[in-house]
Amino acid sequence: MKTSQILIPTQKEAPNDAQIISHQLMIRAGLISKLASGLYSYLPMGLRVLQKVEKIIREEMNNSGAQEVLMPVTQPAELWQESGRWDEYGAELLRFHDRHNRAFCLGPTHEEVVTHLASQYLNSYKQLPMNFYQIQTKFRDEIRPRFGVMRSREFIMKDAYSFHLDKDSMQAEFEKMHATYCQIFERLGLNYRPVLADSGSIGGESSIEFHVLAESGEDAICFSDESDYAANIEKVAFSKQEKTNSTSASEKQVLTKKITSIEEVAQFLKVEQAQCVKTLIIKTANGYKALALRGDHELNEIKTQNLLGDFEFASDEEIKSLDLKKGFIGIKDLSIDLIVDYSAEVMVDFVCGANQWDYHLTGCAWDGIKFKTADLRNAVAGDASPDGKGKLVIKRGIEVGHIFQLGDKYSKAMNANVIGESGKAVTMMMGCYGIGVTRVVAAAIEQNYDERGIIFPASIAPFCVVIVPINYNKSTRVKDLADNLYQQYLDAGIEVLLDDRKERAGIMFADSELLGIPHRLVLSDTHADNGNVEYKARNNPEKIEVKFNNALVFIQSKLK
Amino acid sequence: MKTSQILIPTQKEAPNDAQIISHQLMIRAGLISKLASGLYSYLPMGLRVLQKVEKIIREEMNNSGAQEVLMPVTQPAELWQESGRWDEYGAELLRFHDRHNRAFCLGPTHEEVVTHLASQYLNSYKQLPMNFYQIQTKFRDEIRPRFGVMRSREFIMKDAYSFHLDKDSMQAEFEKMHATYCQIFERLGLNYRPVLADSGSIGGESSIEFHVLAESGEDAICFSDESDYAANIEKVAFSKQEKTNSTSASEKQVLTKKITSIEEVAQFLKVEQAQCVKTLIIKTANGYKALALRGDHELNEIKTQNLLGDFEFASDEEIKSLDLKKGFIGIKDLSIDLIVDYSAEVMVDFVCGANQWDYHLTGCAWDGIKFKTADLRNAVAGDASPDGKGKLVIKRGIEVGHIFQLGDKYSKAMNANVIGESGKAVTMMMGCYGIGVTRVVAAAIEQNYDERGIIFPASIAPFCVVIVPINYNKSTRVKDLADNLYQQYLDAGIEVLLDDRKERAGIMFADSELLGIPHRLVLSDTHADNGNVEYKARNNPEKIEVKFNNALVFIQSKLK
Repeated sequence: MKTSQILIPTQKEAPNDAQIISHQLMIRAGLISKLASGLYSYLPMGLRVLQKVEKIIREEMNNSGAQEVLMPVTQPAELWQESGRWDEYGAELLRFHDRHNRAFCLGPTHEEVVTHLASQYLNSYKQLPMNFYQIQTKFRDEIRPRFGVMRSREFIMKDAYSFHLDKDSMQAEFEKMHATYCQIFERLGLNYRPVLADSGSIGGESSIEFHVLAESGEDAICFSDESDYAANIEKVAFSKQEKTNSTSASEKQVLTKKITSIEEVAQFLKVEQAQCVKTLIIKTANGYKALALRGDHELNEIKTQNLLGDFEFASDEEIKSLDLKKGFIGIKDLSIDLIVDYSAEVMVDFVCGANQWDYHLTGCAWDGIKFKTADLRNAVAGDASPDGKGKLVIKRGIEVGHIFQLGDKYSKAMNANVIGESGKAVTMMMGCYGIGVTRVVAAAIEQNYDERGIIFPASIAPFCVVIVPINYNKSTRVKDLADNLYQQYLDAGIEVLLDDRKERAGIMFADSELLGIPHRLVLSDTHADNGNVEYKARNNPEKIEVKFNNALVFIQSKLK
Repeated sequence: MKTSQILIPTQKEAPNDAQIISHQLMIRAGLISKLASGLYSYLPMGLRVLQKVEKIIREEMNNSGAQEVLMPVTQPAELWQESGRWDEYGAELLRFHDRHNRAFCLGPTHEEVVTHLASQYLNSYKQLPMNFYQIQTKFRDEIRPRFGVMRSREFIMKDAYSFHLDKDSMQAEFEKMHATYCQIFERLGLNYRPVLADSGSIGGESSIEFHVLAESGEDAICFSDESDYAANIEKVAFSKQEKTNSTSASEKQVLTKKITSIEEVAQFLKVEQAQCVKTLIIKTANGYKALALRGDHELNEIKTQNLLGDFEFASDEEIKSLDLKKGFIGIKDLSIDLIVDYSAEVMVDFVCGANQWDYHLTGCAWDGIKFKTADLRNAVAGDASPDGKGKLVIKRGIEVGHIFQLGDKYSKAMNANVIGESGKAVTMMMGCYGIGVTRVVAAAIEQNYDERGIIFPASIAPFCVVIVPINYNKSTRVKDLADNLYQQYLDAGIEVLLDDRKERAGIMFADSELLGIPHRLVLSDTHADNGNVEYKARNNPEKIEVKFNNALVFIQSKLK
C-alpha cells in the first residue's frame, strides 16, 4: 500500500490524558482515536495490528479444536438472574431497558449466554468435551477508564468456554488451553509468563494468568530464579516454617519518643526492619483482630480476606477504644485475638511496640504469648520459592490472558446437564479462557518501544517493510526504482508500505519509526548511483547497503 | 473437519416463530440459535458462512481503495445532538446512561461518529477523497423483531462513509461503490438487482438499493422488460400523460345498493376496475384532501407524503363530517381540494361514486371539474417503463445493500470542513454505503433452497465438500478410503467435512442436504469393490460414479 492511500495521522505530541507509553504512542502513531472516555476507534493502521493479533489467536484456537461461535453483545437480564450475577456484579455491568421495558446488559463476559447455549445443544456425554470461543466486542463500565485501550470500556476479547463430563476432562482442557496460550503469545512475539492467579469474581477453583512483562505493568509477578514457578504476588503461598531455638536476649523497654513508623524505629534502634514486628488492627465480622507481620513485610489483603472474611483497617478512634496506642502497638497483653504471620512467628530477639505511648520493646520473643499463625503477607524479592527451588525475583507484568477451571459454578445454577454414561443427568464441568485482544496490542507496545516510537514484533506490525524513497516526486529514477521494488514485494506477498508523500526524509523516517515497522529500505539518487538501497532494522541502529537486485531476497531472508 | 468435532445441531422441526423459509432453515440446519427476541447466536456452521460473506466484502472494499476502521458500538449522545438525529430518530435508537449518568446509544449506524472522526483527521483537500468502512455489530431496537436474522435487533453491517471536496467526486465514488457492490454480490453468487430507491431517514439526494431477488422478499421491485431500468416500486415515477379526446358517453346515475368496493362495483356494472375511479379522503396539516386514482391502482404513500407532508386517512366520522358517503364518494361537487393521479386524469367514460348513498355514476368525464394533478400511485405490472423503453415487470426482492449520496447533511451540521485549493474552508460532501452482512446470509437462503434444505452458493457454503462414508465405524476398508480422500482434500486446501458419526446413511444425507453443502461424495463397500465413489451435486438430482483415484481432480474441476 502507498502512504497516500491510507490515513496515518501521526502527531508529535501525546494528549494530556495519555499517562502510559502505549497510550501515548498509539495516539501519536495514529493507531487509535478517542471518541469518548474509554471508547476508542481503531484507525486503519491500528486495525491492521488488531486483525493480525486476532488471526493468530483464531488459528491457534482452531488448531486446539475449539469451535468459533458469535454470541450477541446484548444479553437478557433473566440469564444473569439465573446465575446470580445480576445482583452480584457491580456498576461495571452496564444495564439498560429496551423499548418494551425489558432489562438487558451489555456483555462484559459470556458465561451465562454460553451456558444457556450449551444446555440447549449438549445433551449427551458423547458430545463432550466441547470448547466454544468467540472474538467479540465487550463492554465494562469502568468507573475511571484510563491508559487508552489498556483499560477502556468497550474492548475486544477472545473468550472461550469449555464443557466437560468430569473434572479430569476439565483439567485436561485447561492444560491444552495453557499450551495453546503459550503458543499464541510465542507467535505474537511477546516476552510473557503464565503465573498462578486468584480466580476473583469469575469464580472457580484454579486459574492462571498470562502476563506480558513490562516495567509499566500494573501487576507484580514473582518468579523463581531456579525453577518454572511463577505467580501473581497476591497468590504466592507460604508455609509454616521450622522454629529455631529461642534467643538468650532479654526483653527491654526503650524510650522511642514520637517514633512510630517501622522505618524510623529501625533506624533509631539501629536494627534491620526485618528484626521488627509490626502489629495491625483490623475489624472483621467477628470483631477486631491484631495481625503481626515482620517489619519489612506487607499484609496480603486477599489472603487476609480468605482467612477472616471481609475486613477493614481499624480507625484511630477504634484503636483508641481498644486501649491501644497507635504507633506503639505490640504483641503482649492484647485484649483481642492475635494472628501472627508464619515469617514473624520464627523471629527471635525482635523489636515491637510496648503498648505504651513512646515506648518500644527490644529483645522480644513469642514465649508466653497466645496467638494463632497464618500466611498473611505478600512475597518480597529474595523469598524462598514456594516450590522449594531457588529464590523469588519480582517483575512487573500486564495481564493479557486468564484461564480458569470454573467447575460447576454456572452449570449448576443454570441446570446445564447432560445424560452421563450411566443414563443419569450429570452437571457439566466448565472451563473458561480469555485473552484481551485490544489489550495485547497495548501490552506489546509497553514491552517494545524506544525514544523514537513503537518497535512492533514482526508478527503484528501493520506492515513488514517500508520503502522510503528520497525525492520520489522529483527524481524519475528514484520513483522508477521504488515502484519496481514495491511491485516486487507485492508480487512476493510481502506487506509493504511505500511512502509516496512529498515530505522531507526526516519526517518519513520519523513516521516509520514511530509506527514501528520492522524493516526499512531507503532509496535515493546517491544509492541508485551505486546500485544500492539502504537497509535498517527498526530494532538495530546499524544501516546496511544492499544491492538493489538482492533487495527482495534480502528482505525475504529477514522475514523468515 | 470431522462432523464429530463441530456442533451441527440439525433438527427436523422449525420453531413456531419462524415464519419465513430462511429463518426455518437456519434454525433447522443449526446455523443460528435464538437468545432472546431479535438476538441470535451464530453457531459454528453459521459463523463459517458469515465469515465467508465478510471476507468477500472486505476484499472487494479493499480493492476499491476503501480503508477499514473499527468504531465503537456505544456512541455518546452529544454527537447525535449535533447532527440533530438524537431527537429525530425514533424508539429504534436504543439509548442508555452510563454509571456517571451520561447519555449514550447503541449505534444503529455511524454517520455521526465517522463525521466526527473525519473532522478531526481530514484537514486539507489534498487528503480527499477518502472512504472509511467497517464490518461491525449494530443495534436497532425493532418494535417487532422477526424473520430470524432478516430483521433482528443486533446484526452485523458493513458500513462505509466517503468524504469529498465536491459533488463530482462524491458522484464518482458513488459509481465506484455501485460497481464494487455488483462485484460483491456477483462473488456471493446471488441473483441481485440494483434499483433506484428512496433515501428515507438517512437523508441525501440519490440512492440505490441492492436487492436479492426472492419470492419472499418484503419489497416489490419494478424492472423494464426492455432496458436496465429497475426501481423500488415506491420510487417508480410517472409523468403527466397526453389526454385523448373526450368520449361521447353521457353520465348516468345507477343504483348500486350496498355495493361499495371497487371490486364489487366493477363486477356489478360489468366494467374493468381500470374503468373506475376511486376517491380517497386524507387529512393533512392543510386540511382534508380528496385523492382520485384509477380503480386498479394503489396510493403510493411516499409520493403522497412528499407532495402533501405527513397525512393520515380520514376516519369514518371525519368523512361523515364532510358530508361524504363512504363507499359512494365521487369527484363532483366536492367541498375539499381534489388531486387526481396522472393515470386517472386521462380516463374517459368512467365509473365513480355519486356522492349519494347507494348510487354510482357511469359515463363520467373530468369536464367542468376543478382539480390538480400529480403522480400519486404505485406502479403495476405492464406499466410503461419510465425510461420510455418497454413495460414494467414486478418481482419481489430483499434489500441487502443501499448506497447513498448524502451531500452535506452531516458534514454541515457537524462542521466537517477541509481547507480547499483556494485556502478557504469547504464543507465536505459525503456518501454512505451499507450492506447487511447477516441479512445477506438469510437472503441467500431465501433465494436458494428446496424441500430438502439450503442450497448454498459455493462461495459462501460452510464447507465445499462433504464425504459421507457408509459404515465408517464398522468397515475398515471404508474408513481407510474415506480418511485417505479426506486427507487428499485437506492437503489440496479444499474445505471438506467428513461425516464420521455413527448415524444411518439417511440421516447423514439429510443433514448434508439441509446444510446445503454443494458437493457430496459417498463411499461404501460396494463403491469400494468397483474402485468408485458416488458424487452428487446439491443442486442436481443426478448421481455419478467417479473413480476413487480421480476423486480429487474431479472435485477440483467442480470448484473452479
